[in-house]
Amino acid sequence: MRHSAAHLLAAAVQELYQQAKFGVGPVVEYGFYYDVDLPVQLAPQNLKKIEDRMRQIQKRNEPFVRREMSIDEAIDFFTAKGQTYKVELLQDLKNKGTTSVREEESLAIDPEAKAVTSVYETGKFVDLCRGPHVKSAQAIGPFKLTRLAGAYWRGNEKNKMLQRIYGVAFATQAELDEHFAMLAEAERRDHRKIGQAQELFFYDDLIGKGLPVWLPNGTIMKNEVEKLAVEMETAAGYNRVTTPHLGKKELYLASGHLPYYAESMYPPMETDDGTYYLKAMNCPHHHLIYKAKPRSYRDLPLRLAEYGTVYRNELSGTLAGLLRVRMLSMNDAHIYCRRDQVEEEFRSVMKMTMAYFKIFGLGNYWFRLSKWNPERKEKYIAEPDSWNFSEEVLRSVLKKLKVPFVEVSDEAAFYGPKVDAQFKSVIGREETMSTIQLDFAAKRRFHLTFANDKGEAEESVFVIHQAPLSTHERFMAFLIEHYAGAFPVWLSPVQVAVIPVSEKHVKMSRTLGVQLTAYGLRLHLDDANESVGYKIRRAERQKVPYMLVLGDKEIPKSKKWSDETKLSVRVRGQKKLIAIQLKKFLERVTRQVTRRKD
Amino acid sequence: MRHSAAHLLAAAVQELYQQAKFGVGPVVEYGFYYDVDLPVQLAPQNLKKIEDRMRQIQKRNEPFVRREMSIDEAIDFFTAKGQTYKVELLQDLKNKGTTSVREEESLAIDPEAKAVTSVYETGKFVDLCRGPHVKSAQAIGPFKLTRLAGAYWRGNEKNKMLQRIYGVAFATQAELDEHFAMLAEAERRDHRKIGQAQELFFYDDLIGKGLPVWLPNGTIMKNEVEKLAVEMETAAGYNRVTTPHLGKKELYLASGHLPYYAESMYPPMETDDGTYYLKAMNCPHHHLIYKAKPRSYRDLPLRLAEYGTVYRNELSGTLAGLLRVRMLSMNDAHIYCRRDQVEEEFRSVMKMTMAYFKIFGLGNYWFRLSKWNPERKEKYIAEPDSWNFSEEVLRSVLKKLKVPFVEVSDEAAFYGPKVDAQFKSVIGREETMSTIQLDFAAKRRFHLTFANDKGEAEESVFVIHQAPLSTHERFMAFLIEHYAGAFPVWLSPVQVAVIPVSEKHVKMSRTLGVQLTAYGLRLHLDDANESVGYKIRRAERQKVPYMLVLGDKEIPKSKKWSDETKLSVRVRGQKKLIAIQLKKFLERVTRQVTRRKD
Repeated sequence: MRHSAAHLLAAAVQELYQQAKFGVGPVVEYGFYYDVDLPVQLAPQNLKKIEDRMRQIQKRNEPFVRREMSIDEAIDFFTAKGQTYKVELLQDLKNKGTTSVREEESLAIDPEAKAVTSVYETGKFVDLCRGPHVKSAQAIGPFKLTRLAGAYWRGNEKNKMLQRIYGVAFATQAELDEHFAMLAEAERRDHRKIGQAQELFFYDDLIGKGLPVWLPNGTIMKNEVEKLAVEMETAAGYNRVTTPHLGKKELYLASGHLPYYAESMYPPMETDDGTYYLKAMNCPHHHLIYKAKPRSYRDLPLRLAEYGTVYRNELSGTLAGLLRVRMLSMNDAHIYCRRDQVEEEFRSVMKMTMAYFKIFGLGNYWFRLSKWNPERKEKYIAEPDSWNFSEEVLRSVLKKLKVPFVEVSDEAAFYGPKVDAQFKSVIGREETMSTIQLDFAAKRRFHLTFANDKGEAEESVFVIHQAPLSTHERFMAFLIEHYAGAFPVWLSPVQVAVIPVSEKHVKMSRTLGVQLTAYGLRLHLDDANESVGYKIRRAERQKVPYMLVLGDKEIPKSKKWSDETKLSVRVRGQKKLIAIQLKKFLERVTRQVTRRKD
Repeated sequence: MRHSAAHLLAAAVQELYQQAKFGVGPVVEYGFYYDVDLPVQLAPQNLKKIEDRMRQIQKRNEPFVRREMSIDEAIDFFTAKGQTYKVELLQDLKNKGTTSVREEESLAIDPEAKAVTSVYETGKFVDLCRGPHVKSAQAIGPFKLTRLAGAYWRGNEKNKMLQRIYGVAFATQAELDEHFAMLAEAERRDHRKIGQAQELFFYDDLIGKGLPVWLPNGTIMKNEVEKLAVEMETAAGYNRVTTPHLGKKELYLASGHLPYYAESMYPPMETDDGTYYLKAMNCPHHHLIYKAKPRSYRDLPLRLAEYGTVYRNELSGTLAGLLRVRMLSMNDAHIYCRRDQVEEEFRSVMKMTMAYFKIFGLGNYWFRLSKWNPERKEKYIAEPDSWNFSEEVLRSVLKKLKVPFVEVSDEAAFYGPKVDAQFKSVIGREETMSTIQLDFAAKRRFHLTFANDKGEAEESVFVIHQAPLSTHERFMAFLIEHYAGAFPVWLSPVQVAVIPVSEKHVKMSRTLGVQLTAYGLRLHLDDANESVGYKIRRAERQKVPYMLVLGDKEIPKSKKWSDETKLSVRVRGQKKLIAIQLKKFLERVTRQVTRRKD
């Protein structure tokens, strides 16, 4: 249906611009586009016109008519129409057996019937197309043209740039409306906008691209998340370590990052004692800590955790807000264990992961167990026994935990199976939050051994890699979008805005501030020389959970704040002020912070 | 006297090895050395022989006789003796007017009397020497030869390597003894040894030189120190930020690190959007945060703090344990303030610095105020008014705080005066712990301004740089040496060692362990299959503050630990066990942790 809408779009363009030459018009997520070569440059207002014409054609209820012809007939047909792009594709089909524009494009032609091709007619518009299509234009659901872009013919910048017209189409008006509501919501929750408005982070060209600088508010959130991770990991028996951000070439040759991953790494730095690289991964450093002393079977499991930082030399054009950066921090942990400990350790990691999800109110998650493909032995480490054992262990834990999961073959890492936690974001995107990987390869690459109960060296060390909160940067983007900037109290950079009505209330506001700070609350005393209305709106815009506006009415006659003083508190998102004793208020906020739950 | 001891050494060598040719024999801290060219390779046991011969000569009480001769006479004299090195020095004196071997060497010749030179005789040994000397060998105090080393003639590796014999000499035997006691103490406190024994950190060749890896125990200490810094800084109104470890070339050109400091920086890394460097300093990054939004006079002082990391590409041969590394972390803070705020801010920084010193039991410190030299305007930023104002502010704060301080001219940074905190370490070395710098240059280099109360842009932003705990790496080396590894409870990686006497006591040891852990104590339950004596010695070696040995006698008959259970606690450094109720023990340890005081 979305593909038919693309034809409808092309038909409308043809009616409006007779000289139009058409490139291709495939389906994309939620919609479609068509690349057209026009003598005029379209402007956004032209979209409305094209859309109106599409509706007219739809009203005429033109049928989609399929006709078959030989390739040579088709070449003649489109040559006659001056559709040079279609002719080029047909020539390719004839000579090379493919019309592949680029991978994004599944074009139109039945590969099994090379000699014969099909065209579809929609009114006066005839397109080279494999189909199928809806019966007639009226079967196309509600649609809307959304935007214009430039696109080189066949994605090659040496070719002419065509005009790409994007549209979306849905089966029902409700779905179309929902789609636009979702887009608006995504924009409202855009982490870059909120990040700027709440002064969480910024970029500076002098520091460089893909390198966010965390401002005080962002640093508070970063530290709260890190504190949570430290608490969780300490309680679960992890040992924290700190490893340098550099490593020698020899380390990354041992780990296999070099030469295979070199493209993603920053360029090497030569020093007087060899070649250094910025850290590509934390694992090799942790493996060396494992090896720093002899380990016995009694020392396992050894759980090493670090809020570590790795570097990726991404192309500057591909960087996007916090979602793709060049310096990535993460609460990265590695568990070194014996074969008989894998199940228990994996189960604990799963439970910790779900505990995180609960704290952040992520309910709609499921897991994906990625397995190897025994047929493709070249792609995977050749330990069928380890594969079978591990996949069965992971599956059995997932079953025992009664969590929803799917199994997918041939998607494991080369060194072992993995479990991804998937979730649907508040704006409906499916995302991977965390990955837990089992690794049989490290033991051999790094000669990881332990002494068994007979004192013999055993090499069967299993490594579990985990970074339950993804990278810190991506997780912050998630948090911002997830909460639309209205963070739970424990995460909020400013928990309480104290707003004196006028200059004469500043002093008493300060004494209250001191009391709140003594309870560990983070507050902003807004003593700016501005109207109280402005200050309230500012706190609202910054989504501060609590606001205390202090004027004559709110400040006790005694000029003393006591536990029993009644406060009028504006709670974020609520119209009505609540009246609450100072003591109760402190208890309430402290409870929310300690429980990490509003 | 030490120089005379060098002659005595040479005289002894000459008596023992007639073919000896002598290089130079200057004074060094606590002693002296002589470089000699011998046909035989000396071994440590030869030192004893030479020392004995020195004493014989001393007994003969040979006088130090001065003789003067012209340079040409001296050349003939030493040529006749085959002393080619001395001849070379004399030739230099004759031709270039200097005998400078290297800067370390102040040689022997009176520059004002170039035509005439002096030699000193000690028995049969005659040395080219400017003097003065003690009257006779018996006036040389107690001495001892300490070690042998190789040294290229004139420090040039193209020249022959001579044998350098080191010795120390003091006025009294007591001083000599004290010196060796201090050396033994320094060795006992060596941070590298203790770091290894207590598993605090290690180096790995695959990660690289000068890049310590912090093991779990070291990371605990690192985090405790960082936690302290965060607490202190938060209480003092600092805002924490987090800045990337990279910066673009343009940033370091703006800061002036490039090209002047390029030698110390890691090599540049080219990416598709420019040239990046590993961070040389945190300041430029913080300056950009200051500039990230317009600041008003009401926003000042702005105090930015970060546990930041900087990189120095030191030559690998100069790296030494934690004292000279290539990646340095520090609690680095910058205060941006108005001129009228400098005094108050500087006073606060001083007080915070002294508060740190108190926590770490550093009583014997004094300050050094480094001032500019108005005569050398090329060396300093040309703002006499700012210099006078700042130096006076710093001096006045030092006076008001009634702390001991000295003033030194011509030792300021080019951008402003500084105050160093000096102390004598437990082994008697004078060290600089922290530096507080005032900076007038940043405002211009980075165009730091604020809007004054008329809304006009003012550029008079003063920046205070401070890193009160030096670099983290150096501070850890200090802590290890300072406490000789017997850290106060709050810093100790393991606070309590729980040692079951045998296998059957493990279970009850665990239940006690759970209670201690619930109180936040860090403990090591030593359930290794080893004798209790061995386990006690291990905990002693690791200087764990408290040890609980649990056997039949210590475990309650009821098999239940209660608040009232009497524990027998071995306290570090005490022979006698103390008997204390579980509850009281928990209170005691918790108090020591909270107060950061044993």
